[in-house]
Amino acid sequence: MNIQPQTHRMTQKRIYFNEVAPRDGFQIEPDFIPTDDKIALVDALSDCGYAKIEVTSFTSPKAIPMLRDAEEVMGRIRRASGVEYTVLVPNLRGAERALESRAGELNLVMSVSETHNLANLRMPREKSFASLAGVIGHVDGRTPINVSLSCCFGCPMEGEVMQDEVLRWGDRFAELGVRGLSICDTTGMANPAQVSRMVDALRRRFASQQLTLHFHNTRGMGLANVLAAVQGGIDRFDGSLGGLGGCPYAPGASGNVTSEDAIYMLDAMGYDTGIDLTRLLALARQLPKIVGHDVPGQVAKAGRATDLHPVPDFVAGLRGQ
Amino acid sequence: MNIQPQTHRMTQKRIYFNEVAPRDGFQIEPDFIPTDDKIALVDALSDCGYAKIEVTSFTSPKAIPMLRDAEEVMGRIRRASGVEYTVLVPNLRGAERALESRAGELNLVMSVSETHNLANLRMPREKSFASLAGVIGHVDGRTPINVSLSCCFGCPMEGEVMQDEVLRWGDRFAELGVRGLSICDTTGMANPAQVSRMVDALRRRFASQQLTLHFHNTRGMGLANVLAAVQGGIDRFDGSLGGLGGCPYAPGASGNVTSEDAIYMLDAMGYDTGIDLTRLLALARQLPKIVGHDVPGQVAKAGRATDLHPVPDFVAGLRGQ
Repeated sequence: MNIQPQTHRMTQKRIYFNEVAPRDGFQIEPDFIPTDDKIALVDALSDCGYAKIEVTSFTSPKAIPMLRDAEEVMGRIRRASGVEYTVLVPNLRGAERALESRAGELNLVMSVSETHNLANLRMPREKSFASLAGVIGHVDGRTPINVSLSCCFGCPMEGEVMQDEVLRWGDRFAELGVRGLSICDTTGMANPAQVSRMVDALRRRFASQQLTLHFHNTRGMGLANVLAAVQGGIDRFDGSLGGLGGCPYAPGASGNVTSEDAIYMLDAMGYDTGIDLTRLLALARQLPKIVGHDVPGQVAKAGRATDLHPVPDFVAGLRGQ
Repeated sequence: MNIQPQTHRMTQKRIYFNEVAPRDGFQIEPDFIPTDDKIALVDALSDCGYAKIEVTSFTSPKAIPMLRDAEEVMGRIRRASGVEYTVLVPNLRGAERALESRAGELNLVMSVSETHNLANLRMPREKSFASLAGVIGHVDGRTPINVSLSCCFGCPMEGEVMQDEVLRWGDRFAELGVRGLSICDTTGMANPAQVSRMVDALRRRFASQQLTLHFHNTRGMGLANVLAAVQGGIDRFDGSLGGLGGCPYAPGASGNVTSEDAIYMLDAMGYDTGIDLTRLLALARQLPKIVGHDVPGQVAKAGRATDLHPVPDFVAGLRGQ
């Protein structure tokens, strides 16, 4: 079955994916994932054709024991050409470790919701901003910097977050010279109409920044939001293999948008994701063994639409009746 | 949190939902659902504000034992004004039973894929068409007729299905005077680009028919496909409470688009679905008890984005630092 006619192939727009399962996904897994498994996963992801992989986080090993092996993972992964290896950095000490580990990008995080920032990072937004501004000054252009802004489409505790508030925090980081901004729907509160409005405003305001959209599938709308963002001209997305990374506020609910489902959709629509879907789906199918539980991704279970099913034997006898 | 500003409320477009869980959803459940439970569910669905409810199927009780109580269910449900009670009808005998049961609409089914029609209905498409044409002639305008065309976006055995083939079968039924056509993505093979192309062609060709889109979430794209269809001007959708109704070709994969997730999305975007979401979500949360297992719907688990979470106690002490 050819759902991607050649005519579409010829006018494909490139979409760039950042795979966040090794950091954002693994971070909330209850059982420690062996360092060798992490390295093998990142190396296998490198072979799939991702633009970026968020490998680990240089936080305190006490705060996030799962990622206590950040240096070893960064030291032992194979660096594929064309793939950028990004790491989460919470502060100056983390930035130093990340630079020593030859990270391709430093990803800083704060929330545009005061309550969420207090609950999650235990400090007011202004303190976070000052700290991250210090990191940016210290790095001083040696490595590109991305800032992930949490709760851009709503806060699970405060509720509505004004679009202007997102733009305001984006402005402050843009003025400090960051290369990219990730606009995160941290707990899956966005809807496609809101995404369209946000994307229009973001593209006008941050024309010279890499803009990445980070969606969750908490309310089933993850791919619809990806679609709305692509329609609005966004070409960079975070995704998590298998949909790893749940939502602490909604037990049983899905977490991050599933990378292979989002990539499969865009590929079927005729976009060039740069990803080898056969490899990616094979990898996604290994994930339950790595994490020890079922994962939310759908395409790995259902197969591609082009994976045809056998015709029952009795059908032959009924043909042409 | 107000994600539906009043300005949107004032220009809301109406979207009509047909709830298929009592027929399409229940049909593949392994354990018989008591008649009283079915009636209670349909009555509760009537109170939610659906435009249409597919109540049951007048097939042979031997073929589908789950729906052997079709007459009793149709006889005992409360008929709410504004709600149309539709039933699946496979043949002339079924049509007679449906008319006797005062069905508000007869829903006929065949596949646009020859192999799928043979595998599913055990006859070539031409035989199905002749049989359904006989039903339409027999009903002779006494009750509105809808025709559901299966596999319009691909066949799990044949693969690609040409758009022209869908239009051709639609034409043949339109010529017989049917009121509506349901364009079904029976095994979740559609992608949003394909949906946009299909919807453009359908709206040009069948401007005087009720056009309903029926999506599955088999590959996670259900709501993205709903979005693409709405953007293309479609205002009627099938949905299944909780996402009931799996895909026999993909064990573990999701089935029908979840009604409450689709309705929640469109409501959040500012569309008028006519549905009382509070009632609908309460009902969706009862579904696992009725069917005895977890269901795929997300919003019933995660809650609405407006259902705020408590702020942790320690946050108060951190404010204004």
